[in-house]
Order: sequence, then structure tokens, then C-alpha cells
Amino acid sequence: MIKDVFNKQKTETAEIGFGNKNYNESVRFLNQNGTVNVRRKVSDKHIGFDLYHWLLGISWPQFFGLVFISYVIVNTMFAVIYYVIGADKFGGLDVGTGSEKFYQLFFFSAQTLTTVGYGHIYPNSVLPSTISSIESMLGLMGFALVTGILYGRFSKPRADLQYSNEAIIAPYKEITGLMFRVANKKQNELIETECQVILAINNLDTQRRDFHFLDLERSKINLLPLTWTVVHPIEDKSPLFGLSEVDLKARDGEFIILIKSITDTYFQTVYSRMSYKSSELVWNAKFVPMKQMSDKDGSISINLNDIHSYTKV
Amino acid sequence: MIKDVFNKQKTETAEIGFGNKNYNESVRFLNQNGTVNVRRKVSDKHIGFDLYHWLLGISWPQFFGLVFISYVIVNTMFAVIYYVIGADKFGGLDVGTGSEKFYQLFFFSAQTLTTVGYGHIYPNSVLPSTISSIESMLGLMGFALVTGILYGRFSKPRADLQYSNEAIIAPYKEITGLMFRVANKKQNELIETECQVILAINNLDTQRRDFHFLDLERSKINLLPLTWTVVHPIEDKSPLFGLSEVDLKARDGEFIILIKSITDTYFQTVYSRMSYKSSELVWNAKFVPMKQMSDKDGSISINLNDIHSYTKV
Amino acid sequence: MIKDVFNKQKTETAEIGFGNKNYNESVRFLNQNGTVNVRRKVSDKHIGFDLYHWLLGISWPQFFGLVFISYVIVNTMFAVIYYVIGADKFGGLDVGTGSEKFYQLFFFSAQTLTTVGYGHIYPNSVLPSTISSIESMLGLMGFALVTGILYGRFSKPRADLQYSNEAIIAPYKEITGLMFRVANKKQNELIETECQVILAINNLDTQRRDFHFLDLERSKINLLPLTWTVVHPIEDKSPLFGLSEVDLKARDGEFIILIKSITDTYFQTVYSRMSYKSSELVWNAKFVPMKQMSDKDGSISINLNDIHSYTKV
Amino acid sequence: MIKDVFNKQKTETAEIGFGNKNYNESVRFLNQNGTVNVRRKVSDKHIGFDLYHWLLGISWPQFFGLVFISYVIVNTMFAVIYYVIGADKFGGLDVGTGSEKFYQLFFFSAQTLTTVGYGHIYPNSVLPSTISSIESMLGLMGFALVTGILYGRFSKPRADLQYSNEAIIAPYKEITGLMFRVANKKQNELIETECQVILAINNLDTQRRDFHFLDLERSKINLLPLTWTVVHPIEDKSPLFGLSEVDLKARDGEFIILIKSITDTYFQTVYSRMSYKSSELVWNAKFVPMKQMSDKDGSISINLNDIHSYTKV
Repeated sequence: MIKDVFNKQKTETAEIGFGNKNYNESVRFLNQNGTVNVRRKVSDKHIGFDLYHWLLGISWPQFFGLVFISYVIVNTMFAVIYYVIGADKFGGLDVGTGSEKFYQLFFFSAQTLTTVGYGHIYPNSVLPSTISSIESMLGLMGFALVTGILYGRFSKPRADLQYSNEAIIAPYKEITGLMFRVANKKQNELIETECQVILAINNLDTQRRDFHFLDLERSKINLLPLTWTVVHPIEDKSPLFGLSEVDLKARDGEFIILIKSITDTYFQTVYSRMSYKSSELVWNAKFVPMKQMSDKDGSISINLNDIHSYTKV
Repeated sequence: MIKDVFNKQKTETAEIGFGNKNYNESVRFLNQNGTVNVRRKVSDKHIGFDLYHWLLGISWPQFFGLVFISYVIVNTMFAVIYYVIGADKFGGLDVGTGSEKFYQLFFFSAQTLTTVGYGHIYPNSVLPSTISSIESMLGLMGFALVTGILYGRFSKPRADLQYSNEAIIAPYKEITGLMFRVANKKQNELIETECQVILAINNLDTQRRDFHFLDLERSKINLLPLTWTVVHPIEDKSPLFGLSEVDLKARDGEFIILIKSITDTYFQTVYSRMSYKSSELVWNAKFVPMKQMSDKDGSISINLNDIHSYTKV
Repeated sequence: MIKDVFNKQKTETAEIGFGNKNYNESVRFLNQNGTVNVRRKVSDKHIGFDLYHWLLGISWPQFFGLVFISYVIVNTMFAVIYYVIGADKFGGLDVGTGSEKFYQLFFFSAQTLTTVGYGHIYPNSVLPSTISSIESMLGLMGFALVTGILYGRFSKPRADLQYSNEAIIAPYKEITGLMFRVANKKQNELIETECQVILAINNLDTQRRDFHFLDLERSKINLLPLTWTVVHPIEDKSPLFGLSEVDLKARDGEFIILIKSITDTYFQTVYSRMSYKSSELVWNAKFVPMKQMSDKDGSISINLNDIHSYTKV
Repeated sequence: MIKDVFNKQKTETAEIGFGNKNYNESVRFLNQNGTVNVRRKVSDKHIGFDLYHWLLGISWPQFFGLVFISYVIVNTMFAVIYYVIGADKFGGLDVGTGSEKFYQLFFFSAQTLTTVGYGHIYPNSVLPSTISSIESMLGLMGFALVTGILYGRFSKPRADLQYSNEAIIAPYKEITGLMFRVANKKQNELIETECQVILAINNLDTQRRDFHFLDLERSKINLLPLTWTVVHPIEDKSPLFGLSEVDLKARDGEFIILIKSITDTYFQTVYSRMSYKSSELVWNAKFVPMKQMSDKDGSISINLNDIHSYTKV
């Protein structure tokens, strides 16, 4: 009995940082893609914009679009400066209309910024030489930043995990359990994967939102070559014990999943987050076991499409 | 009772590396920005100047100023060398006065260093060719260093934490507690944040400076989406137990905060340090709870300006 | 006795992520080079192809071959575009046949992509200038990716461990033990090396595949300057206790070795995996001790060729 | 008593990887600079040459010398190829003697390799264009490697620790202790520094070399702003208990120091190793306390020259 009390207390004190406010409407702390559903502001302004973080997070088309637009803008700016200085201060410029001169200066700028420097156009007095020597220096530094971010995006360690669409309440040994499945979506291996599951639930007595760490049958796995069925046994010390489907929805339950692992590429620690709202929980179901086929060459294969399959019991 | 004795002993032996000298004047071990207030010298000279560390730490204007000045100096040096070799050793150089030749050689140097190499000026004998081939090699390596540091500065992992301006001594459950608040100033998330609080205080008996780890209500938090109120309960085993505001100032108390966390961008471990002197401690106050608003889209927002607010009790 | 039961239970519950399916044919979970013998697919298609991981893993000739072929293809594509635009839109192009013009445009492309930009050929109207300014930008970004991967391959932390070709069952103190030897193949040092050994074996009763962590005489070593003989003592609590060579083969035994260490170059954590199938196990043998010679200059040397040597007993 | 036996056993089993061979001559496992005094060979050949590790470890003059020599060699090789192809295949080449043509092709190669590409010399047929387009590609990749290593050397995390020249056996509380001092030589801070001390000593009974972990008064320190005096109290459970200076030398004692810390620049874990042979141990001495001066601006300063000072007692 003492043991149960101890465990109860331990789960009562879970603190993951979302505070204990009981919102009137239903809230979601974590989105399904793992992003945190909180905005920190200073006087209604979003704060702490982290350019590096943002540049790593945007999509590839957005990133390349941004690079291209910046390239055009910077070259236009320098072309304007060169045009104001005077096209006659440049050697090799074909005679032509003002707009013809401008476009030639625009491309001279591009050739300077990228340091390609063909040289058929070149600055032939002090002022344009000064500007273009600054431009080539800025070009080197700017492209270093862009390509650093490009490589940072490309090599960013990440845990690409496939979670089952639903968590289920299923028979488990002689009791029932809360279960979901997770697998590695990439070819590289994940090592020493650890999982924590936290239940966020309104407390009807205190009118606060409680957070409970859920005990897991197994919270760490050495390798993740196949799928991992994470199981919380609903024993009498579990905060889920005795709760019905209706209770859990009424109390706005959310299951927050925190996974920590190590990638096999550069041996970096990576984290993955996920959340199941009570509406994404299927009661009285059972996951269909993943088919593990042994191939002709002695290796084993699975089909990740099967990860979501369950049957009602 | 045995437990208390044990804890007392544990806190007595805290050692964070600042030695036990009791200074006559008031000293501050950590500045509010977390830098350590100690200088290591060899015979009155500052030692261990770490160029890389310094270049990562200076401000952006200082950094770019330094790059620009270095660029001008290096080009001037090479221009002098080329001028001494003789302007007639270069093809494409416009005839002109000595100073005109010098500036053309200066820009030839810039075009070589950045590898833009327009080619309207070019070396046409052995010596200038040799120097310029060395210059372009040095340029590649020099700009690689500069851009590496530039990217290092840009991508440096850091914990940008907002601490409350003051720590307070506030009612806590049925006793009192030392409290301060901390929040993440950036949009990216901080994971597995851990906190240690150490009290540095003069010991009137031994005439030495003692260091006590203060027990925290909670020393680790899984996520830090909102604010975290770090609490040290002033129980009878606390070294603060029975001390008045006057006592603490007389004994030159300093609260040293060490925070360890993991950033969500590259999953790197980051550290933050902070210190409250006894003069930055408000007695008999209470933090105003942070307003957590649930927005229309279901997300939650807070205003970080509120973190410093307290009311006297 | 209680201790033995506890240990038995502990080893029964080992879970390394390969599931408990009992395959009819003999399977190998880990290849001898440490790669995992599992394929994750989506509807028969290999999923999660991780380009970065793949580019870090291919051989050096494959990598350089790929770079060279890509370089030729990209230049050909741009040459075709320039040719379609019209060779007359370029200055400095020698008159000649169509194919002569094409090859000159091909090399103009190469000079643009690498930003070498000699300039004897140059774009002299808007369209070719636009294309070549895009090409030089793409060149900078493309080569940044290639050289980033090149450097990533070069600097990749790895544990280059030499395992003995066979594991042996040898006399150990007064009982017997399972042993294998491991040494560092590189000159840099490995720090805080830890080892886990897991036995995968079919359970005849349950018709499932069981995984047992094997207790090691020593599971961590501070430095690995010489060789390390990893020993599992076959005591009565060992899952190997009482098994004969025939039993182990019949039950398709596989010993999975997981090693974790820290390299001395950049102090990065690295992992190494290895597996011995029951057919790679030699019974009743003894490793020949490694010769440790003290050299004239006071240093010690060993010959890694000796690591595999054993004698039958 | 039971406690002492336990501790004795624990220290008996220390294993740091140097084996237990008892060499006839005196050996040193670790050099004072922390490098390991062991060579791993395959049939008399040094193995596992790790180019990256080596390039990070050589001195700056060696590194730049190597880069410069490689640059000259590569350009010479390409100049030879271009010369064999024929100087008439290049535009802009001044007429001249064979050696004049060669040096012009040498500098053309340098301009291609660094992508500076002035263009006053340029390839004007297929073969030299092909070679030079390969050269510029190789140049980009080669310089990327060189500059990557250059930046790797520059930004390499390291623990630059100043150890006292000698370890001493000094009075400690009511017994004696083995002590040495260590301080951070750089301006950046070291966090969470941990220390292990291992005694390697010949065992006269077993004729083997034993390794004992020595219990430390304190094995971890939060910050290292000043100096840290690491103390092993020579209690009766200590393997040093009862040993005289003569005994320790006769048994070829070596104290191996392993220090682990975290740098404040990029928060990377770094390691430092050091060793004191019994001849570098001073008996019956006492370290002179470091002077901690509080400066006018409230900061504290120490002089690292004082770290070695001791007085005989």
C-alpha cells in the first residue's frame, strides 16, 4: 500500500511547465506535429524571434524563394548605387540607353557578389572600385551565411518518427493499457530511445489542470529497427484507473508524448514530441501486430503503413 | 531529525569554485549577465586570451567593424608590396600619377583577396604573379575563418532567459520561500531545464565565505513554454532560516543561479547563469500571477513584461 | 537465491527492439559490420531515404564519382540553355561549328558554376546574363553543399574498433566465460568505453525469440590504449548456463554487441555495433595474451594482428 | 570495518585499460601533456593513422607549411599537364621561352585553383578547358577541406588547464593527503569540472601492475574561476597508506589524472589528462595559498604563476 501511495504522490507532482490553469474552453498544449501551442509576447508583440531557428524551420521552397529574392534585391540596390555613380566610371560597358546601362550594372553587381568576376565590365575609378570591393566582401560573407544555413538545414539531426494515428485503450495482460505505436521513418538507426508520457487533465476538485507522468511498461529501448508499442498499464495507481471515455473527454484529457533518442549518423541526441487529445483515443481496440517478413537475403522487413491498424474488441 | 542533520551537512559542503576567502569589502562573484567576476593573470598580465571565444562574444557592430578594418589593412599591405615591385609589372594598369597607380593596385589586391578577379588588371611577370597567387590563397583561408566565425556567432546555441528583476521572499504554503521567475525569451523551446541555486554568505564564526546549495521545491522542468517560478522553501534546515533582511546584507549574501537546458533547434545543451545580491532581494512580497490567455485559435499566450510584477504583502 | 531469481528476471526482460517473433529460418539481426538487418517499407517501397545519411555513408570513389557526374550534368544542362539562347549573345566566343560553340558554352558554364570566371567568354545581353547570374548563385550554394558533405565525411566521428574474428567460450577463473577482444584501430584515443552484450535466442517453450542482457565482468573502461577482453562469466544465473554448442546453434543464438565511447579528437560520443552468430563462436579455446612490448623510448607497443589468436584447450 | 573492506575491494578493481603487465624497466603510461604512451601497430607498421586527427593536432606553422607546399605541388602538377598539352592552346599567353611559358601556366593554374580567374590567360580549346574546369572544381573542394580543417583547429574545444608542476604529500586536516592544483588557463569558463585520480603501481606479491582509483575529498566543482586543489586523503583504506617515498619509487608509482569539464563557449564537453610519476611528487610540503585580490571595480584576480608554489614543512 505504501508503494501505491508513493507512486500516486509521484504522479501527482508531475510538472512539465504548462502551469495549472484550468481553461474554460478545451485547450491543446502540444500540436500533433510536436510544436508547443504557446505564444510568448511583450505587450502584444511576439518576442524572441530567432532568425536562425526560423531559417532552419521554413520549408525548402520558402528558403530558396527567400534566397532568390534577397539576391535580386541586393543586386538591384548595388546596381542603383553604380548607376548613380555613373556608368562612365565603368570600363567595358556597352553604349546604350539608360535601362541598358542599368541592366549591365545589375549583372556586374551579380558577378561581383558571387565573385565570378568575368571582367568584361570592370570599375575604372576610385568610387566604383571601392563599392565593388565592399560588395565582393559582403558577397563572400552573405553567401557563407546562406550556405551555412543551407547545410545546417540539410544536416540537421532530427527524429523522424511515425506515430500511430490513434492511441488505444486495449487489453493488456490481465488488465487494460493505454498504447500507441511509434517507428523510425528514416533508414538511419535510432539508438537508446526513451519515452515519457504525461497526462494533462482537469481536476474537478481543485479546478486546476493536473499533470501526471504515466508509468510505462518499458520506457527505454536500445534500438528501434521495427516498431515500438509504448504501453501504460492502467493499474489502480494509474490516474486513468476508473476513468471512462466520457470522463476523460469531459476533463479535457491530453496525452503528451516526449521522446528522446540518438541518431546513428552523427550520434546526436534528438527529441520528438507528440500529443493525443482524448478525441484521438480509441477505446476497446487492439493493434494489429506488425508483419515481420524475413526476406530471401536473411534480412527482415516491415511495412510502416500497418502501424495505424487496430481492430475493435 | 537525522534527515535534517544530513541535509545541513550537505548544504554546508557546497563548493562552486570561488574559494572561501572573506573579503572586507562587498564582492560580487557573478555579474547579473552571468559573466564571472574573476580575472586570471600571469604576473599582472591577463592570460589565456582565447581569440575564438572573444570573436564569438563581441557585438555585431564590433565584429563587422573589425572585419572591415582588417580587410582595408590587408589590402593596403599588399598594395604597398605591389607598388614596391613596380606598377609596370602589371598589365591593364592605366597610366597615371603614383597615387592613381597605388589605388589601382589596392583594388587589384581586393579583387584578388576576394577571388573576384575581374582581370582588367593582372600580374604579368613572375614576382607579382607569385605574390597574387599567395594572396588569393590567403584570401580563401582568411575569408573561410571570418565566415566560419560569422556563422558560429549566428548559430551559437544559447539560453536566452528572462529572469525577474528581483528575487522575493514570499509566503509559500504555510512557511515562506525565496522565489524568482524565469522564462524563455526566444520562440524556440527549451527542454529539460534544470536549476541550481547557491547562497554565498560570510560566516561570522569562521570569518570565511560559505556556499550553500539551496533545496528547491522543483529543480527540473520538462518544457518551459510559460514562466517557471523557482522556489526555495525556507524550512528550518535552510541556511536562510532565521535570517533577517539586515543579517543577509551584513553578511554580503549573493544568490548564484545556475541553469542548464537543451535548445530545440539543434538539441544542444546550454547554460545560463545569473546572480541576485542581497540588495536585489525584496522581502515580504508576492509575484503577481502571469496571465495565461487562451487565444481564438486554441493556443495560449502570455506577456513577458509581467514577469517582474510583485506586490508587497 | 532471491538474488539469482532477480537477475534471471532482469535478463528475461531485455528488450532491444527486434521484437519476439520466432522465425523459421535462421536470421541475423545485426551484420558483422554493425548495420541493422531490417528494412522499413511503405507498401513495398523503401521509405525514409535520408540523402544526407546516404551521402555520408557511401565510399570515397562513389562520392567523388557522384560529384563529378553531377558537375558534368549540370554544366551540360546550362550549356544547352545557353546554346538555345544563342551563341551570338555571348562575347568572346570564337567563331566555329555548332559543336565548337557548344563546348565553349559548356566551359563557360563550368567557369560560371565554379565562379572562376576567366571572362574571355562573357554574356552580353539580358537573357544570358540572367541565366549566368543564377548559375553562379546556384554554383555557390551547390558547392557549399558538396564541400559541407565532403568535410562532414572527413570529420565524421566514428569508433573504428577491431573486434576479434571469433568470440570464444574459455576457462575463466574457476568457471567458464564468453569472451571476445576489442581494440581501437585508430591513433586517437577512445575514452569511457562502455559495452553491452545481448543474447538473442529462440525460446523452445514459448516459440518466441528472447533477448538476454549478459552480465559482464566489467562493462566500462576509462581508456582503451591496448585491447579489452570483454568477459561474460557463465554462472548459473547466465542464460548460457548449461547450454551446449549444439543447443546454441539449434536455438539460432546471436550475440549482439553494443559499444559506446567518446573520441579524443572532438570529444564526441560514438557508437559501434557488432554481432557474433553461434557459428562464429569457438568453444573450449583461450585467447593468446597480447604481447605488450616496452620500446626503447619508454613507450609501450602492441600488434593488433594478434587480437584474433586463440588456442584450443 | 565492513565499509573499509568494501572500499578496498573497490579500489583494487580499478581498470583503466593499461593491462596488468609488470614491466622490468620503469614505464610511463601518460606523458605530462596527457598523450597516451602506447603505440598500436599491425606487423610493425603503425596503424590507424587518422588524417583528420593528425591535421587537428599539428602546430600552426606545420599546418600552414603543409598547406603552402601542397598548393605549390598541385599547381606544379597542373602546370606540367598544361605545358604538355601545349602553350599554344591558351589565349593571352605572352610569347617567350619555355620556362617563361611554364611559369605563366603555373600562375594560370593558381588562378584557376583559387577561382580568382583574372582571365588574361585562358584556355582556348577543348583539352585545356576540360582540365581547367576539373582543376577549378578540385580547387573548390580542396580549399573547402583546408578551410574546414583550419576552422576546426581554430574552434576546437579544449580544456587548457594549468596543473601544478608537482603533486605534493601535505598535511591535511588531522592526517596527510596527496594534493595537486589545477586552474583554467583561458578566459572562458569551465563548468561542472570532474576529476578522477588513479594510482598505477607494481604489486610486489602478484608481480602485476595494479590500478587504484583514489578517493577524493571532492571530485566535482561547479565553476573553476580560481584554482582547485584536488585532495586525496591518505586514510587507512588508501592504497598510499603506509607507503614511504622510497617504496613508491621502487614500485614505479604513477598518478594518472583524468579531468572532464564543459567549456562555456559552445558548451562542449572536454577532457584533460595528466600524469605525475613518483619522481614528480614532493613529500612533506604545503601549497602556498593563492592570493585572491579584490580589485577596485569589485572583481577578484589571481596570479596563475603562484599555482606551483609550495613550502617544505
